[in-house]
Amino acid sequence: MMNSSEELSLPQKLSKDIISYILEENLQPGDKLPNETIISEKLNAGRSSVREAMKLLASRNIVKIRQGSGTYVASKPGMVEDPLGLTFIGDKKKLVHDLLQVRALLEPSIAAMAATNADDNDIRRIRKLCEEIEVLVKENKDHTQKDIEFHTAIALSSKNVVVPRLIPVINSSIPLFVETTGNTLLKETIETHREITEAIAAHDAMRAQDAMYLHIVYNRKTIAINEEKEND
Amino acid sequence: MMNSSEELSLPQKLSKDIISYILEENLQPGDKLPNETIISEKLNAGRSSVREAMKLLASRNIVKIRQGSGTYVASKPGMVEDPLGLTFIGDKKKLVHDLLQVRALLEPSIAAMAATNADDNDIRRIRKLCEEIEVLVKENKDHTQKDIEFHTAIALSSKNVVVPRLIPVINSSIPLFVETTGNTLLKETIETHREITEAIAAHDAMRAQDAMYLHIVYNRKTIAINEEKEND
Repeated sequence: MMNSSEELSLPQKLSKDIISYILEENLQPGDKLPNETIISEKLNAGRSSVREAMKLLASRNIVKIRQGSGTYVASKPGMVEDPLGLTFIGDKKKLVHDLLQVRALLEPSIAAMAATNADDNDIRRIRKLCEEIEVLVKENKDHTQKDIEFHTAIALSSKNVVVPRLIPVINSSIPLFVETTGNTLLKETIETHREITEAIAAHDAMRAQDAMYLHIVYNRKTIAINEEKEND
Repeated sequence: MMNSSEELSLPQKLSKDIISYILEENLQPGDKLPNETIISEKLNAGRSSVREAMKLLASRNIVKIRQGSGTYVASKPGMVEDPLGLTFIGDKKKLVHDLLQVRALLEPSIAAMAATNADDNDIRRIRKLCEEIEVLVKENKDHTQKDIEFHTAIALSSKNVVVPRLIPVINSSIPLFVETTGNTLLKETIETHREITEAIAAHDAMRAQDAMYLHIVYNRKTIAINEEKEND
């Protein structure tokens, strides 16, 4: 997957040095980096190579370049859109299936962790999203975005630092799923979302885990039914 | 996490167009992209902007630019080093702990999937890596790289298309872990790796799952013991 170091271009090498600098100086999201001239001197490199390196880091969402203002550490450094490159898996049917398999391994336990660790703000946010999804479903409107936010809020409530980094994996299956099933899972979505929400609000880990597992099982069943219909 | 589309620079927009092109034309890893002139015409953009866009795609490991030869689809398109940006999580002790929590959710089931789906080649590869690690451990040499390859081989044997994309998450904890425990887990590593290998070879899913779970429990215990020592 990775280039060995002798294959790296100068800007690529410099981008690694800048990452080390960010870590050594313990720069936080939103912190400003020193200007190009200072970085060039520190790294003993030309300004145009440093500029190239910064563009590479910006494309990996490690820094954010603001024209006329300067270069800052990004808000979630290193998190890119579709970090696992799932866009490039050709067989979408298998991708939906395999993503649900991975979601079934992760999300019930994440819901349990959220039930244990959610604070009042987390619970308020999860409940609000649950209600918003319900309104959208009843008005026959697309709820994909809110659905992603609902699962994201639960993952953040787990207080595990890795889990919110896995959210994109989990989330990426939702639009695919809505597309695959043609949004037919509406009653079950409302009921299982409500049950997940109330279990987390009650800090009942086992109930949250069961509710999330049921949610994923419904998803799986709906996909299986839709596939059978297609094959008829 | 994401830029909204109105904030995108021209090369960023073009890089999205090139991704769409790769998907529409169903280009596979290793396939050559049309040259700059043709792409410029197709996307109705200047050649220097297209060149910038290609550099962005190369930094995200979507394409590979070979000087004097052309631009190719990367071997695992879209998979970057440290895709979840874990490098930028400051509290390494919590990161090790939370990664092991996620590994405990994923890896036992992945081992079970590997036991079910591994073919003879997979089993040969896993067994070879298991033996190589044993030799390294007995010679008191660093086995980090081979350990990563061992867990990678198991994930590939699962035949789930998402799981091998999660390998970097799993793997990233191994060097951290070896660093944190000072490599004290040698006897247990040999024994649990052997048990995992034999269970997969016997296509015994439950035994593979239990063996992997035990492996992760040992890791967790060792970390807890080391932390107690540090606090003394």
